[in-house]
This record gives sequence, C-alpha cells and structure tokens, in this order.
Amino acid sequence: MSANSVSVGILGATGYTGIELLRLLHGHPFARVDCMTSERYAGQPIEAVFPHLHGHDLPTLSKIGEHDLGSLDAVFGCLPHGTTQDVIRELPRGPKVIDLSADFRLRDPEAYERTYGQPHRAILRQQDAVYGLTEQARDAIRATDLVANPGCYPTTAQLPLWPLLEARLIDAGDIIIDAKSGVTGAGRSAKESSLFSEVSEGLHAYGVSTHRHTPEIEQGLSEAAGQPVAVTFTPHLVPMNRGILATIYVRLVPGVDVQDVQAELERSYEGEPFARVLPFRSLPATRHVRSTNACLMAVHPGRTPDRAILLSATDNLVKGASGQALQNMNLMLGLQETAGLDQPALFP
Amino acid sequence: MSANSVSVGILGATGYTGIELLRLLHGHPFARVDCMTSERYAGQPIEAVFPHLHGHDLPTLSKIGEHDLGSLDAVFGCLPHGTTQDVIRELPRGPKVIDLSADFRLRDPEAYERTYGQPHRAILRQQDAVYGLTEQARDAIRATDLVANPGCYPTTAQLPLWPLLEARLIDAGDIIIDAKSGVTGAGRSAKESSLFSEVSEGLHAYGVSTHRHTPEIEQGLSEAAGQPVAVTFTPHLVPMNRGILATIYVRLVPGVDVQDVQAELERSYEGEPFARVLPFRSLPATRHVRSTNACLMAVHPGRTPDRAILLSATDNLVKGASGQALQNMNLMLGLQETAGLDQPALFP
Amino acid sequence: MSANSVSVGILGATGYTGIELLRLLHGHPFARVDCMTSERYAGQPIEAVFPHLHGHDLPTLSKIGEHDLGSLDAVFGCLPHGTTQDVIRELPRGPKVIDLSADFRLRDPEAYERTYGQPHRAILRQQDAVYGLTEQARDAIRATDLVANPGCYPTTAQLPLWPLLEARLIDAGDIIIDAKSGVTGAGRSAKESSLFSEVSEGLHAYGVSTHRHTPEIEQGLSEAAGQPVAVTFTPHLVPMNRGILATIYVRLVPGVDVQDVQAELERSYEGEPFARVLPFRSLPATRHVRSTNACLMAVHPGRTPDRAILLSATDNLVKGASGQALQNMNLMLGLQETAGLDQPALFP
Amino acid sequence: MSANSVSVGILGATGYTGIELLRLLHGHPFARVDCMTSERYAGQPIEAVFPHLHGHDLPTLSKIGEHDLGSLDAVFGCLPHGTTQDVIRELPRGPKVIDLSADFRLRDPEAYERTYGQPHRAILRQQDAVYGLTEQARDAIRATDLVANPGCYPTTAQLPLWPLLEARLIDAGDIIIDAKSGVTGAGRSAKESSLFSEVSEGLHAYGVSTHRHTPEIEQGLSEAAGQPVAVTFTPHLVPMNRGILATIYVRLVPGVDVQDVQAELERSYEGEPFARVLPFRSLPATRHVRSTNACLMAVHPGRTPDRAILLSATDNLVKGASGQALQNMNLMLGLQETAGLDQPALFP
Repeated sequence: MSANSVSVGILGATGYTGIELLRLLHGHPFARVDCMTSERYAGQPIEAVFPHLHGHDLPTLSKIGEHDLGSLDAVFGCLPHGTTQDVIRELPRGPKVIDLSADFRLRDPEAYERTYGQPHRAILRQQDAVYGLTEQARDAIRATDLVANPGCYPTTAQLPLWPLLEARLIDAGDIIIDAKSGVTGAGRSAKESSLFSEVSEGLHAYGVSTHRHTPEIEQGLSEAAGQPVAVTFTPHLVPMNRGILATIYVRLVPGVDVQDVQAELERSYEGEPFARVLPFRSLPATRHVRSTNACLMAVHPGRTPDRAILLSATDNLVKGASGQALQNMNLMLGLQETAGLDQPALFP
Repeated sequence: MSANSVSVGILGATGYTGIELLRLLHGHPFARVDCMTSERYAGQPIEAVFPHLHGHDLPTLSKIGEHDLGSLDAVFGCLPHGTTQDVIRELPRGPKVIDLSADFRLRDPEAYERTYGQPHRAILRQQDAVYGLTEQARDAIRATDLVANPGCYPTTAQLPLWPLLEARLIDAGDIIIDAKSGVTGAGRSAKESSLFSEVSEGLHAYGVSTHRHTPEIEQGLSEAAGQPVAVTFTPHLVPMNRGILATIYVRLVPGVDVQDVQAELERSYEGEPFARVLPFRSLPATRHVRSTNACLMAVHPGRTPDRAILLSATDNLVKGASGQALQNMNLMLGLQETAGLDQPALFP
Repeated sequence: MSANSVSVGILGATGYTGIELLRLLHGHPFARVDCMTSERYAGQPIEAVFPHLHGHDLPTLSKIGEHDLGSLDAVFGCLPHGTTQDVIRELPRGPKVIDLSADFRLRDPEAYERTYGQPHRAILRQQDAVYGLTEQARDAIRATDLVANPGCYPTTAQLPLWPLLEARLIDAGDIIIDAKSGVTGAGRSAKESSLFSEVSEGLHAYGVSTHRHTPEIEQGLSEAAGQPVAVTFTPHLVPMNRGILATIYVRLVPGVDVQDVQAELERSYEGEPFARVLPFRSLPATRHVRSTNACLMAVHPGRTPDRAILLSATDNLVKGASGQALQNMNLMLGLQETAGLDQPALFP
Repeated sequence: MSANSVSVGILGATGYTGIELLRLLHGHPFARVDCMTSERYAGQPIEAVFPHLHGHDLPTLSKIGEHDLGSLDAVFGCLPHGTTQDVIRELPRGPKVIDLSADFRLRDPEAYERTYGQPHRAILRQQDAVYGLTEQARDAIRATDLVANPGCYPTTAQLPLWPLLEARLIDAGDIIIDAKSGVTGAGRSAKESSLFSEVSEGLHAYGVSTHRHTPEIEQGLSEAAGQPVAVTFTPHLVPMNRGILATIYVRLVPGVDVQDVQAELERSYEGEPFARVLPFRSLPATRHVRSTNACLMAVHPGRTPDRAILLSATDNLVKGASGQALQNMNLMLGLQETAGLDQPALFP
C-alpha cells in the first residue's frame, strides 16, 4: 500500500451510484475501498449482487454499524434521501463526507421541508455543507468536511447558466430548462414505472413544474445572479441507460448577442478538465460523454436575435453523480482533481 | 368488390410512410390498394422487401409510369421531397392526391426556395394545394384535389397551439417548441447517422433553429394568430422507433390564466375523434398513441403564473404522416373520417 | 347489439396478456367485453391504469365476485398460475373458458406438482381441459368448455416440431430448442430483474434445463411422436418487448433429407391462416410477426446431411398468448377462426 | 515519454474496432498511438469523426502511405477483409502486426478462397501468421511478427470448447453453437439492415450453416480435437450494441459426466486473467463483460445425462476484437499481458 493511499467507504454501495463509484475508484491511483455497506446484502461479496464486479478484490458488504467509519479518509453517502441525514448526523468527525443524496443540498431548512415534505433532522451539519458543483465552488469544497453533491439535472443545467447569470448576459427571469434523462436516474428500486416494457420505445415528461430538483437549480442560479431566480424546468424520461441532455432557452439582456454568450462560456471554463465548451453551434450528444465526467456545452442562436439556446450533456451517473463526487473527494483530500476520472467515453 | 369501394395508389410504397399506409388501409372498410410503386423494387412483390406484409394480397410493385394513375380514386405521394413535385405536376386530373412530402406545404414559393434551396417546379399545382392539418382545415380539405399532408413535427406542435393563438390567449411572440422524435422520422435510407449503434443509448438535438419544419410551423401559426409568428423550434432524436413528444413553452396574455388555456383547448377539440385534450396536468406518453392516429394534449402550469406548458404526443408515422393522410383521403372522398383509423394503441 | 354478438369477460385484465386481449377484441366483429376484473384496480376505469386504452368504451374494472360470470359466453383467465385453478374451479358452468395460465396445461397431476411445487387443487376440471395448440387440436377445442392455452415458448417450439415427429422424420431423442424471448414474457410485476437498466443492452440465458415450459413442450411432442420425448430447452432474455424466436436443432431419421422436412411442414400447414411455412432457407424475424397471430417457420440444412435447423417466430403476446386464446374462443363458439386476428404486423 | 514506451499505429482507425483500440490504449501504461489512418477522413482530427474522443491528444488521421510504418513497434490492422492482405503484404518488416480482419485466420489457402470467394494474395505472409486465440497460443504469439486476431464468434465459441476437445471429454461430431451478437459486430458501414428501425425491437438468425466464421471455428477445434471437426453454427442479431453470448450444446463421451466438464474447464483456465470459469450452473450475461476483455464461461447439465450446455459471454469489441488484439500485442512485445485491459465492466 502506497504511503499516500486513501481509505474510502461507500454507504449504500449496491445502488447504481454506488457501483459507479466502485468502477471509477478502481482506476484511481491512490484510493482504496475499505468499506462498502448494504443493509440488504450485508455479509455477501459484491459480485453476488453484481457479477460484473467479480475479481476486483473488494471488501465484503457490511451493515453501516459494523465498520469503524471514523478510520476512513473519505465516505461517500449513496443512501436514499431522508434516511441519509440520520446516518450522516451520527458519523464520527474525521472522514471527508461526500453525500450524493438530496439531504444536504438545500441550504434553507424551510425550502427542504417544503420540497421533501418533512423537517430536516440534521440541521447543524447542513449549515456546514458545501454544495459541490465543483467548477463553481472549488475553494469551499477544499475547505469543508461535508459536500452535498449536486443532483444530475442541477449539474447539467447549472454549468452553462451559472457564468452567464454571473456576467449578467441573460435575463434571470426567463429561463426554460427542457431536460431529458436516461433511466438509471430513477435508481435501481423495483418499480413498475421503470420496467423495460414500460419505458422502452417511448418518451414522456414527468414532474412538470414540480420536480424536486427545481429548488436546487434555483438556489444555485440565484446565487450566481445575485437575485432570486425562478426557472421553468421540465424533465423527460428517455429509453436509454445513461445520459442527460438539457436544452436551455434563454433571453439575452439588451445589447448582448449570442457570440457574447459563446465567448463568456469559453472564458469561464477555459482550462477546465471536465466542463468543456464546444465550438459555436455544436451538437453535443449524451453518447459523447457516456462513462465520463465531462459536461459538454454548446451555444446556438435563437430564431430571434434576443434568444439563445444552450445545450448541455452529461452522463447522469458520472458528472451527474459519482464522478463529480469523486472529483470533490479529490479536492477535499488535496489530490489531483482528475485522479480516477481520466477515461475516454465508451462508444458505442 | 363493394359498390362503394375506393381504388387507391401509393407512389413510393417501400418507405416507412408507404408501408404504414398499407397497414392502415388493410383495416379500411372501403379502400382497395390497386397500385404500389417503387422505382427500386419494381417487379417484386412487397413481401420480398417487407416480409411482414406477406399474405395481404397486394399488387406487385411497379414503376410510376406503368399504371394508369388516372383510374384511381386517390393517390398517396410517399416520394422524397424535390422529386415529388415533378411527379405530381404530371399526374392526370381525377384522383384525389394526398402528398406526404414537403413539396406543397409552403404556400409562398419564395419561402419554399429559401427553405429547400431550389425554385419550385410545380407552382400551379401548389396554388391549389390545401395544407392538411385536418382538424383546422376540414372544409378546405373536402373541397380540394390536392392535400399537402403536414409534417410530423408541425402536426404535433400546431394542434395545441392553433386554437390558443386563434383565441388570443398566448403571446404569439414567445413560443418555444422543444420536440423529441423517434428514429423512423429519418426515413429508411441507409445513413451512418441512423445506424443502431449510432442512435441507441443516447440523445441529441439537431437542426437547432434551422430545421426545415420551422417555416411550416410558422406558416400555420401565423394564420391562426392573424399576424406573423416566429417560433423557437428544437428537434431531438430519441432511441425509439415511433413517436413525437412536443413540450411547448408559452407565455399567457395578461389576464389569461392556465385554466383558460385548458378550457379553450377542451372547447376547441370537443368531440374530435383524434385530437384529444387530457385532464389538466396529465402526462401523455408517446407509448399511449403508438400505432394510432391520436394526438394527446395536456396543459400544465408554469413555475410563474404567466407561463404554461403544453405537452403534445403523436405517432410520427400515423397522425404525423400516413394516418392523417388517410384521414384526409376519407374527407376528400366523402367517407367517414375515422374509417381505417379506429385501432387501439399497441402497448407494450 | 348484433344478434350474434358474444359476451366476453377477462379475469385479470390489467396484465400484458389482458390488455392484449382488449386490443384484439376491439377489432373482433362479434365480441363485446362485458366484464374486466382486477383485484388491485377494481372500481377504476381501465384508462386510469393504461392511458392508451382511453376511449374504447370498456366496462369499469371489478373484483371477480362482483360480476355474474355465468352470464358470459366466454371467459379468459389471465390470472397468475396457482391462483387460477381456485378461480376456475368455482366458475359457473356455461361460459367457455380459455385459461392463459399454466394451471391446466399439464395433464398428469404428478407432473404438475413436480413442476409447480404444489398439488393441483382442481383436478376434476383439469381432466376436461384441452391443450389449446390450435393447429393440432381443433376438433377437441371445438368440443370442450375449458382450453388450457399453451405457453409462449411451447407454442413457438411445438408448431414446427409436431408434424415432423408425427411423420417420424426426425429423431425424437435428439431435439434441442434454443429460444429467445422479449421482456413482456416476464409479465408486468415490478421485479428488479425486469428493470430497463437491468435488461437493456445485454442478453442472458436463464432456466437452463429447468424451465417450467419444458414438461409442457415434452407432453405435446410425446403425443406427436407416440413415445416419450425429452428435449433440451434453453430460454434467453432479449432486450425487446415482444417476440420469440426458437432455433431448433434436429437430427434426421436415416433416409430422410432436409427437403423432406420442408415438404412435410408445407403439407402439414397448407392453407393454415396463421401457421406459415416460409420458402426453404428463409430467415423469419420476430419483427415480421409483431402484433400478429402468425407463427413463421423456416427450414435450413445443417452443416452435416443428417441435421436440420428449424426457425420459428411468434409474437409471444399474440400467438404465444392472447391471440391464440382468441383463436381458440372463436373455435369454441363456432365463429370464424380468424375473427379479430386479421391485422398486418406493426413495423417498425 | 518513458524509456519503455511503445509506438503504435492503427490502420483503419475510424471503425468500431479502431476506436475501441484507442479507448483501451488510452489506459495502457506504455503504449503511445503515433499513427492513425483513415482513407476517408485523412487530414482530420479524430474528434471530427468521433466527438467522444476529444481531448485525448491523438495524432491527426492520415492515409496509409503518409506515415513511416516501419518506425512503429506495433501495427493494428482494422481494415476490411480483402483489402487488408494487400496492405499487410507491403508493410515493412519490423513492427509487430496484429490483424483484426479475417484475411490471415485460415491457414489453408483453399479454405480461404472457398470461404471468401477469391484467391489469397499474400500467401507468404499467411504462412507465418499465428492464430491469436491468446489463451491457447501464447508461446506462438510471443514468437511471431503477425497475429491473425480471431473473430468475435470464434473467440467466444472456441474458448470453452477447446480444452474439452483436447481432453477428449466431448463428442467432436456433435457440437451445436447457437450464438447471439450485438449490432456493432456488423461494423459501421451504412447498411439498411443495420438501421435502428430495422434492428431494434426484434431478433433474427442469419447465415445459418453458412456464416464465414464457421471454417474458422472448425479449424481451431479440429486442432484441439486432433481430428476434423464440423460444427453447427447459427448466429443471431440482437438489439444491443455490444456482446456475444454463445449457447453451446455438446454430447459427453461415454463415462464422462457434466462435473468432469466443469472440472476440466476450471483446471484449464485456472489463473487466467480473462478466461473465467464461473461456478457450476451460473448464468453469465453479456452485461457482465461489457467493455472488458473477459470471457465468462459456465457449464450446465443437459436434460439427459449425456448432454451438457456451455454458456460463453464476451464483449465482441473487446475480447472478440480490440481487447484480444491488445492482449496479443502485449505478449508480442514482452509487456505484461493485462496492460491496458484491467478495467471493470460498465454497468448499466
């Protein structure tokens, strides 16, 4: 074991974000998975649940209480929202915590209660949590012990909008986000609505104007804009496993044209390893980012000069979940930000 | 043969819209397919090209010049745009013509030339053509010899917007149409971009602000609004065979609320067999209309009171192409409008 | 209501075979659905569960005890195996019963108990049940009150094998059936193993040498062969909604060649509306039969002269379930056998 | 650049096997891609053709003649069969050559001509070529300059059969291979038969008893058996991108039982990094090996004691093509055999 190796735990390792973390950590030069919990499968090797993980020398699944979590350098929370806060509240201080649930994302406890239908039960820790949209919060992420890892839709939507609002190029009162997601976004629980025969060969919108990611998106964009922002957000379910494409309709502030938008995005993300602005009028596909931590962004002119269209594509399980979580862990532990995340897309 | 039987021809029968017409005509109580052309497969039985059509007693494929088209009661044009106008220009008068290509949809020859990159070569016939969005043009369709059958995107987008513009409930200057289509919309030609491995497991936008269906949509909506309308239209390609979902973002005219929108749509399409307005906040899926001529529409409130979101779902090969064409033929020939179109959806 | 209309009930109408029956019965010239049961959704209209069935004027879902089943002309059982026998045992005599579960398929109660792990609880009715592989049992089906509708795999496998065994052209001791099925074969229950993300983009075998359809296949083939037949049967799950393809490896009896096999199949199924033998060396695809009651069969030579390969394709929900059930109902009630079943395939 | 870095070229880099090599080589600790050819896209960067490869610092695409191929340490041939032999015949000696086409796989020039319909034009080099089924030919691979990389079906089928034939446990005269492949196996050329709408939602067999991989499989198995072997081989096309599952039916030699088969396979592949024998009666899925170089094998008892069923799963683009090619390069250059190939599967 290398002197600079990092001991990592995954709480809730048998969901899609948990196994995606295992995939990425396998390629990490320093990280070592020492603890994987699963209340349902405790006592079993991971390959009994996921045969594709055979042969990677991973620890046996355990219950949360069975491992000394305080001895770990980093803990990823891949538990369902609601129960996560109870677990994280009781965690010993010491390990850096990256929580992939929604529990610590909303800073305002009232917004949390309004959105999730119950009072928050770990308000003290919530006050310390840093919202981990990496490219917009690096310094705070480096300094905190608890990162609330952004949702997949919020990551994909905020990355192109944040710099444009900050630079006051677009109208904060007229933002429409039409987002399309693959099915892994719904998780691995056995629901009729996620069955192959209910999901394949078709498309539908859901949670129109009511999806729980809306307040999360608005929280970030309001910070960027320096004023309250309300967005129209419509998610859709697409018959594919991975990927989110957000098609974003914005109105340009008078005097701004679409090339200013392109230029501002390029300037803002220059040199970024994962947030990449494509040439003007490019057409990013979710296929181009499958299995990678990239967010591809493109700018298009609207039909009228005061409008622009932004396209933003991510892999919902990577930059939209486990990849960004790992990126955040790297920052929190002072490692190279791209460690474990430098792989080409799998295509086809 | 029944006294009231109708003799039908299909020009270009071996594309997806051609074989979809054959499927629908099979269930038509009066129609009889007497002529099917294919320059590529002339001389062969249709089941040599499409084994699933075996046993339906259809005529052998022929070249266009080989059949006396003047003897037919109705002719469907399923040829590529551009070549269609040359064929239709030479057609004998007599048969009702329903053209599924884009050649006769744009009334303004200059708009045609601008959009399709060449001057129109059958301007005389174009002057007579009726744009066949059935629910909005019944009387004109009944009276004409040539229907320009609407495109799949234009059909799906115009049906919910038309009555709202006519009733002046929404702002004609702020309409955004985010549309998602299955792969049959790209036709059957062998293109790399339509290969299974290039299309499955992913999503992308294309033709952003430039798609050729935009002027077609704007032509209709301008007529409905009584003023020029420019729309933002973004099509996306989804890994499924059939279906279009249009998610449409509109701004309400001051004093109008979202329930007025719901009420106007319900009033407008009351009693319509195919244009169906679902209860407020419904979530139509393309699966619900697969293989049928239905257009399902739903109204949702926006995040702010001045906005509403419209959802509209069709099967791009049926209401978006061959089904609406048959609906139009029925009207042109004085038959029952729903003849051949009364089948439940195939699900799953 | 027509004088010759037929009153039909469906027990368990909200599974995939139930709604497929509704789809087919909609096109039936005489049948009228008067009763649809669902213990889970009783009291609701069917479109609350399946929006695609809106507008077809169907009765409200009820519990089994709420309708006078004795007044019906025909009852389809679409209930899970195991509970079906209890329901059918209590049915009033009168209606013709077509049971789509496995409960009445195995004639030998011991074979039933061995296969399904519990003693049969309706042995008296089981004695009367006719195994409804239509093309091989028409007279018995016409004469009975209870048809045990064959399973999807057994239908697809038995149709090509039955005549060859009867004619003693193939070795009854060397039959290998490699079958591939779409996902609707697993039903609509919410199981992890049927989730889109667990089933798409991959393939696997299951139930190797142990699948419960094996004794059912062997029962029929033993009858055809006049001797006990044991088959090797391997099912596979394919990422598609509908369709079964059986690839069957047989050894020819000495003196028989592959053209004899082709000729015997052609002779045997000559004039059959649904069991169709394709020209020698054809390649039937499940796409060619989607949504239809057809079984397409083809014969291929093996690599050595003593072997032949049979291909057999069906839609598992139609000829493999609801379509054959309707075909059987037609026979039992003296109607035209093809009534409601004469539709072209949906492609793509 | 490391002292022990390896300079690699890819001829025909813009097909699916070419870009898969690029993906794998990216993770290789020593290899450096110095030359990528494409007659069609020469002069362009690879990301112009495959946007997902952006940012990996790869050389511009060139024509074959434009690069000094003799300066490379290894050359991968990803060209179509037929033209490959002309290119390889002219290659300067020096670089190790791994050819992924079919051109050098058949040792017997007459078998080549019979199978591919033309005489071989590089017979001299063919005499030196080693058939690169790595686990069965390591020493020869290490010693040669030209490896004929096995086809995807032959790899998947031969790995489980080879040791059983060598050990004389199964009847060499009664082997049936029923194989199912994803669509990337058909390559990236624009063919109607590979269109999304022609391939999705269905399944079919093709090349029954005539597929060109049959002689390749038989060549290897004959060598293993020490006698001529003829196999029944039936490929099928499955609507998924990657993966092959071979379901193999064998007859046991008298005195052998299925546990002997399991034991022999385990013994034979003990310690192998990629050829893995699963516990008795396991059900390998292609999902378990997607994106990896693994071949998973499992043994099942047949319905009768003299039969066994073997399951074998690979990713057709990795162990079935580019991964095995890289494994062979590693051997040829004296590198660690697993270099660049140690990644977990991508799931879902």
